[in-house]
Formats: sequence, C-alpha cells, structure tokens
Amino acid sequence: MPAISDKGRQMPESPIRKLVPYAEEARKKGRKVYHLNIGQPDIKTPKVALDAVKNNTIEILEYSRSEGSEQYREKIAGYYKNKGIDVTAKEIIVTTGGSEALLFALGTVADYGDEVIIPEPFYANYNGFATASGVKVVPVVSSIENNFALPPIEEFEKLITPKTRAILICNPGNPTGYLYSREEIRKLAGIVKKHNLFLISDEVYREFVYDDLAHYSIMQEEGLEEHAIMIDSVSKRYSMCGARIGCFVSRNKEVITTALKFAQARLSSPTYAQIASEAALETPQSYFDEVSKEYVSRRNLLVSELEKIAGVRVAKPKGAFYCIAELPVKNTDDFAKWLLESFELNNETVMIAPAAGFYSTPGMGTNQVRIAYILKKEDLTAAMNILKEALEVYPGRETS
Amino acid sequence: MPAISDKGRQMPESPIRKLVPYAEEARKKGRKVYHLNIGQPDIKTPKVALDAVKNNTIEILEYSRSEGSEQYREKIAGYYKNKGIDVTAKEIIVTTGGSEALLFALGTVADYGDEVIIPEPFYANYNGFATASGVKVVPVVSSIENNFALPPIEEFEKLITPKTRAILICNPGNPTGYLYSREEIRKLAGIVKKHNLFLISDEVYREFVYDDLAHYSIMQEEGLEEHAIMIDSVSKRYSMCGARIGCFVSRNKEVITTALKFAQARLSSPTYAQIASEAALETPQSYFDEVSKEYVSRRNLLVSELEKIAGVRVAKPKGAFYCIAELPVKNTDDFAKWLLESFELNNETVMIAPAAGFYSTPGMGTNQVRIAYILKKEDLTAAMNILKEALEVYPGRETS
Repeated sequence: MPAISDKGRQMPESPIRKLVPYAEEARKKGRKVYHLNIGQPDIKTPKVALDAVKNNTIEILEYSRSEGSEQYREKIAGYYKNKGIDVTAKEIIVTTGGSEALLFALGTVADYGDEVIIPEPFYANYNGFATASGVKVVPVVSSIENNFALPPIEEFEKLITPKTRAILICNPGNPTGYLYSREEIRKLAGIVKKHNLFLISDEVYREFVYDDLAHYSIMQEEGLEEHAIMIDSVSKRYSMCGARIGCFVSRNKEVITTALKFAQARLSSPTYAQIASEAALETPQSYFDEVSKEYVSRRNLLVSELEKIAGVRVAKPKGAFYCIAELPVKNTDDFAKWLLESFELNNETVMIAPAAGFYSTPGMGTNQVRIAYILKKEDLTAAMNILKEALEVYPGRETS
Repeated sequence: MPAISDKGRQMPESPIRKLVPYAEEARKKGRKVYHLNIGQPDIKTPKVALDAVKNNTIEILEYSRSEGSEQYREKIAGYYKNKGIDVTAKEIIVTTGGSEALLFALGTVADYGDEVIIPEPFYANYNGFATASGVKVVPVVSSIENNFALPPIEEFEKLITPKTRAILICNPGNPTGYLYSREEIRKLAGIVKKHNLFLISDEVYREFVYDDLAHYSIMQEEGLEEHAIMIDSVSKRYSMCGARIGCFVSRNKEVITTALKFAQARLSSPTYAQIASEAALETPQSYFDEVSKEYVSRRNLLVSELEKIAGVRVAKPKGAFYCIAELPVKNTDDFAKWLLESFELNNETVMIAPAAGFYSTPGMGTNQVRIAYILKKEDLTAAMNILKEALEVYPGRETS
C-alpha cells in the first residue's frame, strides 16, 4: 500500500471533530444538545442576498473572473471606504472563503520551512493551512489574565529568526474575542517594518465589535502599505458561512500579482455565492445594528452567567462571538466528552470546544474552553445552567 | 519591502493570460474575436440544476458538511454505479471544483520535493497546483504522431526515483482529447503497483467520449483499490463551470481520512453550488445525448477543416472538447499574438491557446496550439476560415 505524505499525517484534526460521535450518541439517546462549540450563527442571512440568488437569470453557469468581477470588487472597495479603509478594486482578489485567502497569503509570503508568528490561542484551522502550505507556526502566548491582549512586543522579537516571514493576527479574535487597539496594531506595524516582515490580519469579524469600540484595521495604518495583507469573508458578516466567499486585500502590487496566480490556478470562486455576496453589500445598517445588539446582550448574559459559576474565570470579549473560559477541571477534553456521554439535566446537555486545540504549544489551554454565543438568550441561559450543574457533579472537578 | 516567496515567484501564469490584453485591444478596435482558447462551453446548464437554486428555501446560508452531505454523496455514488464504478458515499469527498480535489490529492500523497509523473502535454494548471503544493512535476512526453496515446511504460519506468509518489493522468485528456484504453490503464496499474505509487486520474471529461468508445475509469481496475484516486467535477459535465463543485474519490481509507482533514480545514464547499450539483444528477440522458452529438459534429467539422489547411497536422480527439494542432509556424505564442494584434478577416479574428504552456519540458509544443471546440458550428467554420487565411499571410510562416 503506498504511503500517504508526512504533510497529510501532520494535518491537524478539528479540535471539535473527535467530540462529534459523542454528540451523535447523545442525540440518539433522545438528548437535546446545545451547541456552544461552533461558529455557525443562528442569525438569518439578509433577504437581499438570498433574493438575488433566487432571482438570478443564469442560463449557462460560467466561470467568473479569477479575481472576481470588476463590479463586485468595486463594490467591496466602496464597503471598505465606508469603514475608513481606502483600497481600490485592483487591490482586492475575491476568494473562496477567508480560508482560501489565508492559503493564498501563506503561499505568497512563505516557502517550505518558513515561519509565521501567531499569538495563541488562535483559530485552529491556521494550523491546517500552515501544514498544507509547509509553513511552521511559531506561537506567542497571550493570556486570559488580560483578556488575551497583544503579548509584549519583546516576546515577538525573541521569536524572530531568519526564517520568519510574517506575523498573523485575527482581529477581533477567534477564539478570544479580543479586539486589538490602535496602539497594539502600531506596535505590530513597528516590528514588521523593522524586520521587513508581512503582517497578515484576519478581519472577518470586523463587523462584530461592541461597547462603542472602533475596529482599527491594519489597512488603516500608514506606512504599512507594502507589509499588510488583509483577509476577509462574508461568512460571519452576513451570516452566510455556506457561501464560501471572502477576499484577499493588499496594496503591495507584487503580493497581489502573486496571489492572483494562485487564484488563476483554481479558475474562479463560486458564481452563485458571488451573486449573493455582491447583493449582501446592500444590507441595510439596521441589520447590523440589530445583530450587534443581539450579540452584545448574548455576550453580557454569557459572561455574567459564567462569572456566577464557582471556579470559572472568563475573558471578557470585545468582539466576534466567542469567549474563552477557564473551568475548574484538569482537562476540558475529558470534561467535554463527559458532558456529552454521561451528563444530562432534564435530558439536555451542552457541547463545548476544548481550547487546547486553539493552542500550538503543547499543554496550553487544557483547562480552557471556547464558547460561541451563537444561540438565542433563552438557550444560552439553559446551556449555562447545564454547565453550572455539570461542574458541580463532575467527578474530575478540581478543588481550589 | 518584504520579499514574496520563491513558491509565489514560481507559480506559473496561465498560458492564455498574456494574450488577454491583446484580445481586449482587438475588441476595442471593434473586432470580433472567436475564442477557441478556453474550456468554457456554450452549452446551457441543465434546467433542473438552475431551477433547484432558484427554488431554494434557505433562510440561513449555513456551512455544509466538510465532506458534502450524506444525501449528495449517496447520489454521486449512484451516478458512478450507473457508469460501472462501484464506490460508496464514504469513499467520496465533495470538493470546491476538480481544482481543489487535485490540491487535496497532491497534499495527501506528496511532501515538499516529491515527484509526480505526468504525461505531457497536460492541463496547465497542474503546474500551478504542483508548485503551490511544493511538488515537482516530472513530464513524460506523449506525441501528436499517435494522437497523444500513453507513452511506452518503459518511459515511465525510467523516470521513477525514490521521490516519485504518483502518476497523474487526465482521461479523456485536456488538452489532447486522447482517451486511454483499458489496456493503457492496465499498464499504468501495473507500474503503480510494482513501485507502490498512487495513480491519480482526472476524469472530469468522462461524459465526453465519442465514436462509441467506452470510458474506462481507474476505479474499475481491479487490484488498484489502495492506489487509485479519482478527481471529478460537475463543471464540464453539466456546463456549470461556475458552480465550483467536484469530488475526490478513493477506496483507500487512509487517503480519504487524510484528504478529509484538508477538507475540514477549509470548512465546506459552497452550499448553493451543491444544491445545483445535486439536482444536476437528475439531468435526463437526452441532454447528454444531444451534447455529445453536438460535440461530435463540432469535432468532425474542426478536424476536417484543420486537415484542409496546408501544413497543419491535427491529433484526432476521441474525448473532451479540445484538440492539439501543429501549425506551420515556428512559435505559436507569436502567432497567437499576431492573430489578435495584426490580423482580421471581415473585422474578425481568433484567439487560440499556444500549446507550450501545456508542456513542462522547455521547447516542447512551440509549434502547437490547443483548440477548444466549444463554439457552435457556424462560428467554428468562420474561425477555421480565419485561421486558414491568416496562415497564408503570416510573415512567420514556415515553408516546408
């Protein structure tokens, strides 16, 4: 039997994947499972986007342009302009989700064995994209003690080697919910300029920023033109994760020319999804206001409920729709499995994402979980009650 | 300014891309350009597929399963059964086009610096996927003299090194139109078993096979279970290139488990496109019969018109909708450019794909072009007339 590649062997599994069979077992027993483990919002997709697809008049579903249509990219540029980000259509490549934009970014800046520094905990699939691209992830630890703020810039300095090609951030962060301040972005700008690196910023949660804070994009930072690569996606913004449309943005011409070659090899992004995504740009502000209000109240509920549970510490998120909580258990992998396998309250239980999978350093985050507040408040309350009761009876509970 | 990667620098451009500005110039002059250069069919997408998308009732456009829905994969398995290919839903991963399936295949079988042997000329984007994956393409030359039949198996033998991981074929072939016989597939099966390699077969043109010939899939070859990886796509079959749906098929469990990890990292394939693709499986046989009849008559017209032109040699295609022709010119890059820039017949000209881009060996195919017969017969006739007249006056014409 021919051997698969080392790369294939090293491709990480989703941190949630191994729990899926246990969730299925629980459901088979007739148990209701509240899913706090995934980033699939329950918010409706804007009607204007859905209608555009329903009303399409396509007769031949042709390839679109590899970089996305001129018209759509012009409109994306208009959207950014409204957000205080001044880019042209030429500086944008439409991609098949933020995922593909990240693959293009890694391919464009890094060769086999090159290094990319990422504050951890980070979006678990960065590991997958890095492995697929032959790139080494070098983590720099951020801490729940300060809500996962940017680690001191000296910590980055220490990790820079001749193989370092980029720093990659997610802002606001999945899984942390942390929003980098203008000052933090400036510090990152300083170090990438000093060491001639790229700064890749995954800003797919840009629209999910709370408490009257403003999102500061790396594309707004002057002097970073040749260094900045922004990753974006319609998935969360318009609750259309299934569209698989994102974009890759840079003012560095060589970077765009190179990323476009990756885009050309795969021909084009999906046409129907581009129709939906272009129309989604007409979504009224009221939609975002409502969504934001809903997430703020969910977050407030979640954080206050978590804070009521003895032994739980929670990082207060300022953006996205995740938070990391530290639980009074030794190993959240075991706890998450136990919740699905052995616990129920009125025949209901919860599924949470053990946080170790969001760290690259072995042994980190083993007592943390990521909770996505993508359920309506009633369900969130029920889920928090289950978590509280579960922690009271969990045999592996740590006593403080 | 930070440097882009060597990988990025080495990413090939599409062989047609550099001609695009010349085509645009020609159009600006009011000139009609017949596009024989691309694989975008003019055939209508089956109504059943288009209607399924128009009639969708999605309210939240959610992620789909990374491997595609159980239901869709069951139906794909049913489609294969009808084609004499016995695979289960578990052996299928739905991908974002055949392109992504190829990326998954290369990532699953090959590490950085590993080699994949491909008969040339081959689909130019294989070069892009190989570069993106850090894999070295090792070409084995096939010849227009026998319509690009499989090169003698000894030629493959000579190229096998400890780094060889797979042989990749396209059957029927883009750009050759060659259909491998059962005997040729058997020979390939023999060599991959002997050297414990994978055999990756891109069968996206399966439905386009003419002259009452039967397509023989690598999945039909007994004893190849652990070696065979089939790449497929709905793009050409249902004239829905813009859907971006394909699939990755293998009976090798480790291969499927590994490819699934690549699929999980990018979350899912586009949802709308999966709706269209699932519905497309209901396309009546009459659609394929008509399409096949149309392509056969286009091919016959094209080949007979090409054969009438002095100094032209043409490989007779048995499948797909391309053929390679040798022209009486030194360099088809120059000729293709000249056609767009300096030639017109009744204010019309043609765009052809220089074939050098389909070869990996430098200097090969420089007097060949790929012609896609994706235009209606009336247009094909006009285009062939233009080519004939152009060759008569082309200053760079080779005299025999």
